Amino acid sequence: MTSSSSASSSSPAPKKDPWDLPDVSGLTVGVLGGTGDQGRGLAYRLARAGQAVIIGSRAAERAQQAADELGMGVEGADNAECARRSDIVIVAVPWDGHARTLEALREELRGKLVVDCVNPLGFDKKGAYAIRPEEGSAAQQAAALLPDSRVTAAFHHLSAVLLADPETEKIDTDVMVLGEVREDCAIVQALAGRIPGMRGIFAGRLRNAHQIESLVANLVSVNRRYKVHAGIRLTDM
Amino acid sequence: MTSSSSASSSSPAPKKDPWDLPDVSGLTVGVLGGTGDQGRGLAYRLARAGQAVIIGSRAAERAQQAADELGMGVEGADNAECARRSDIVIVAVPWDGHARTLEALREELRGKLVVDCVNPLGFDKKGAYAIRPEEGSAAQQAAALLPDSRVTAAFHHLSAVLLADPETEKIDTDVMVLGEVREDCAIVQALAGRIPGMRGIFAGRLRNAHQIESLVANLVSVNRRYKVHAGIRLTDM
Repeated sequence: MTSSSSASSSSPAPKKDPWDLPDVSGLTVGVLGGTGDQGRGLAYRLARAGQAVIIGSRAAERAQQAADELGMGVEGADNAECARRSDIVIVAVPWDGHARTLEALREELRGKLVVDCVNPLGFDKKGAYAIRPEEGSAAQQAAALLPDSRVTAAFHHLSAVLLADPETEKIDTDVMVLGEVREDCAIVQALAGRIPGMRGIFAGRLRNAHQIESLVANLVSVNRRYKVHAGIRLTDM
Repeated sequence: MTSSSSASSSSPAPKKDPWDLPDVSGLTVGVLGGTGDQGRGLAYRLARAGQAVIIGSRAAERAQQAADELGMGVEGADNAECARRSDIVIVAVPWDGHARTLEALREELRGKLVVDCVNPLGFDKKGAYAIRPEEGSAAQQAAALLPDSRVTAAFHHLSAVLLADPETEKIDTDVMVLGEVREDCAIVQALAGRIPGMRGIFAGRLRNAHQIESLVANLVSVNRRYKVHAGIRLTDM
């Protein structure tokens, strides 16, 4: 449960069936930034799939209010308590507050499986564009700030509109999961697979997170041009 | 047919049907680096779809040999003649030779619709990783080196194995097309749509090309883990 840097568990040519994923139904999922659109939408989908979910926010009351609105047993807490009580902690805070939030939670996140889903983007008159963090990506920034956590990256390309829409039964998309440790990625893949329509797919190490995070800028262009809420599917699998 | 920098043609909120694409069946497509795996595969698929194709290479004989092997009326020429004689010029050279090749062809590519499909990647023991060109992306490098050409980017995520396999009738994937000028992108989208199974989808400006190019590093990881030739589909459209 401590560092995630063991090389043996991330061999490039595994013999295991890559679709053989663990049972994660008993794990509690915290969502930092769970009152924002993306975090709230993910909390909703995971709770609807039967997962125990705690919404975290800077202010416990706001988290509690969002949790009450979602129902389904979702709880609310301040970010520190949310992190402490969760097995898996999804980071869905705005990019602006990413480093600050994680630095402040280093102790609470020790040993936890952290799932960064932050997309560092800028917007101007020409639309969205990628911001490149000094560390290479938001996920790599998280890994640098949380050396004792098990940092992965996933859930970047989900439409907040579709996540929140109760009429949408299935969200037809793949969730690309990145990380250094096979077992940690497998847990996140299994978690994604709990949501109807989604598959969790291992898609590389954290050093290849930047393009996954910033692909959202392209989806913004697609959505504008075609009036859709585009997601990503990988083909031939 | 000269510069492509007119702002009016790339308005963010078009009223046109985004699926209304031009007829490109009469255009000649050149493929620079057409003797490499990706270029050759693209040449094969486009010729098979009925497009007039010229394979370009540094050495005319090698291009001619590749063209003869493909048949279907494909022609071979050195890169300069290939560029001169083509309406659309696909750049499928190795990243190593990208800048050098384009610089040498500036005159021949004047006014041409250039489609960059180069993925700047490095490889080491841990797999593939993205290389970030000084200009931001290979496509932006092309645009900087070819100020009088109409530079777009597309065809990054196609499996060379599937492209080359004559048994594969359909390649089930979307081709994300990037560029500054709507009409130019539409031509490339239409060209992609000529290949069975493919859709050409506008996916943003050239400043968002880096993540499209480097996403191939993630597909390399997916292919290794799952033993597939993964492609990309956009959902909800």
